[in-house]
Amino acid sequence: MKIDGIPYRSVWRDATDPRCVHIFDQTRLPWTIDILDLRTQDAVAHAIRSMQVRGAPLIGAVAAYGLAFAMNKDPSDSGLRKAAEELVETRPTAINLRWAIERMVAALSALPAASRAQAAYDEADALCDEDVAVNESIGRHGLALFEDLWARRRPGQERLNILTHCNAGWIATVDWGTALAPIYMAHDKGLPVHVWVDETRPRNQGGLLTAWELGAHGVPHTLVADNAGGHLMQHGQVDLVIVGTDRVTRQGDVANKIGTYLKALAAHDNNVPFWVALPSSTIDWRVTDGVREIPIEERSPDEVTHVGGLDERGHPARVRVTPQGTFAANPAFDVTPARLVSGLLTERGACEASMSGLARLFPDLVQSA
Amino acid sequence: MKIDGIPYRSVWRDATDPRCVHIFDQTRLPWTIDILDLRTQDAVAHAIRSMQVRGAPLIGAVAAYGLAFAMNKDPSDSGLRKAAEELVETRPTAINLRWAIERMVAALSALPAASRAQAAYDEADALCDEDVAVNESIGRHGLALFEDLWARRRPGQERLNILTHCNAGWIATVDWGTALAPIYMAHDKGLPVHVWVDETRPRNQGGLLTAWELGAHGVPHTLVADNAGGHLMQHGQVDLVIVGTDRVTRQGDVANKIGTYLKALAAHDNNVPFWVALPSSTIDWRVTDGVREIPIEERSPDEVTHVGGLDERGHPARVRVTPQGTFAANPAFDVTPARLVSGLLTERGACEASMSGLARLFPDLVQSA
Repeated sequence: MKIDGIPYRSVWRDATDPRCVHIFDQTRLPWTIDILDLRTQDAVAHAIRSMQVRGAPLIGAVAAYGLAFAMNKDPSDSGLRKAAEELVETRPTAINLRWAIERMVAALSALPAASRAQAAYDEADALCDEDVAVNESIGRHGLALFEDLWARRRPGQERLNILTHCNAGWIATVDWGTALAPIYMAHDKGLPVHVWVDETRPRNQGGLLTAWELGAHGVPHTLVADNAGGHLMQHGQVDLVIVGTDRVTRQGDVANKIGTYLKALAAHDNNVPFWVALPSSTIDWRVTDGVREIPIEERSPDEVTHVGGLDERGHPARVRVTPQGTFAANPAFDVTPARLVSGLLTERGACEASMSGLARLFPDLVQSA
Repeated sequence: MKIDGIPYRSVWRDATDPRCVHIFDQTRLPWTIDILDLRTQDAVAHAIRSMQVRGAPLIGAVAAYGLAFAMNKDPSDSGLRKAAEELVETRPTAINLRWAIERMVAALSALPAASRAQAAYDEADALCDEDVAVNESIGRHGLALFEDLWARRRPGQERLNILTHCNAGWIATVDWGTALAPIYMAHDKGLPVHVWVDETRPRNQGGLLTAWELGAHGVPHTLVADNAGGHLMQHGQVDLVIVGTDRVTRQGDVANKIGTYLKALAAHDNNVPFWVALPSSTIDWRVTDGVREIPIEERSPDEVTHVGGLDERGHPARVRVTPQGTFAANPAFDVTPARLVSGLLTERGACEASMSGLARLFPDLVQSA
């Protein structure tokens, strides 16, 4: 997608130094467009942990380059195994990270150590290109869904109101995004989409990143507090909810940013379709019951007790939003049970959030689980 | 309740100037304890609109003094009618405001104009004293509910986990609070209560006021983002949700701070009791369907696009939390349908959230509607 008219991906190889990979420092967006150089596994691990890169698909892609960096240094079997383990541990909930590393390890293990570094870069490049193609495909399938909803609109309805939580846009993937891909395509095609953007406390990825992405692309949108979505749905102001996900179980339970479950409950209570957009790399075929089995990352209380933004002089600043001494808990994700999910939107089309729905679209993957 | 060991109410008459009433400027709490002097109807209207006073019961009490100030100036029938109308319009959702003004008008109308000012102060004083007694009674009934839950605790359970949204504490009433009254009593009685405090964006009354109140009283509590409650309930971390309300319909629908409905849905989905604490003055006997009939105040987008707190030097400051140009919507309340409410906790005890439940406790009020 574009920033000030210039096309970017969210991760890319340096034009002159092929061993260097660039990302945006997403902890500084949208206030500062700061492009980082990554050259080591440690820098990648730090970028993932500190959320300089975030978004399940993008984490996987950047981790793949992290493994390539490790292969520059120690391409032995033990070096490969160690780097893979360390990278997988950087964040616990998103499964694309493990998927990407396992794919890299499978591709590299069979090769002689001396060929691994170059092969790792090539494989990471391929993984990134595939992510873009997969998201574009998700976008096309979602566009068909939106067009169908719009064709069945109420008399006099002036816009298609879509609510999204957190950021599943191009900056959360290599390009296009997952949940936002069909929104971009619908807007480009002239559908009058309007997006309710959940702020997404505590890190405000909605208010910061989704609002920024949509604004840069010219998609009409309105920021709301996370508390507002239920009220909007009660009053017919939401035609569809669409979110991304960090892990989907084989039975269709959906781990996503904390608060997603509350929006799914409200959608269910008001007969609003609740869709989840994902590349198949987000499916964890080994896990069934999401609430019981998916590990939920607990992040720093500081993310709750403090809020970052721009101060009155326009400088990045943080304020404390609770009395000194108040302790905070910060679970970063929750799990929406499959029964609340209207459907999953994948690169192979839409399916029911269930074992049979997923197996119908992905017979090749379900067998390999 | 106490601040630094000194007992306060949230509104009180000046000790030497009987025509002056004091409140805390709640827009500056908890960072600054700023006590304001109110002497005119306009000052009261400003205090309510700007949320220097907030909380449905406290708004009603302060508005009652506002009418007394108006009677100082123009105690004629038309003066009384005009002041009453203007004060009722300061905020649209909380019904206690209308209740308090109607009670004042009923008490004053029958009197000669010359007696109205003094009578108005007396009636407002009485209204405040009754608010304290009513909330203490709500607290006692709630305490019984908590003790019952604690008696049926799981083996090994170490604390009674209560989640609350927004602030329905002593600072939202004249004293004690509604939802927090039984929490204070339970804590004082030695029940190991622990409170999950919803931040309550956009104005953060939970993170600012509830955390401050509970901290000052020594009640164990943990701040969470509004998004977290559903996840906590899925994992057995919430034994009870209790909130206040700005208006309850005759059939038991509950208007309260935006986001309350989402917590009620999550409580229902996880078999967690969801209770609403209220003085009977919060019941609007004229309204049946809360979602359709209760007016929901839309407040300034600035409350969503900006967050206030303490900067790194410890000074009150605001930061912008979304890109310049992002528009925000800010509905301040939502309505939780009665079907999601486990029970209503009133000064006369607990009842079902229904017409028959309310009529059983308040046969005198239902007949007068």
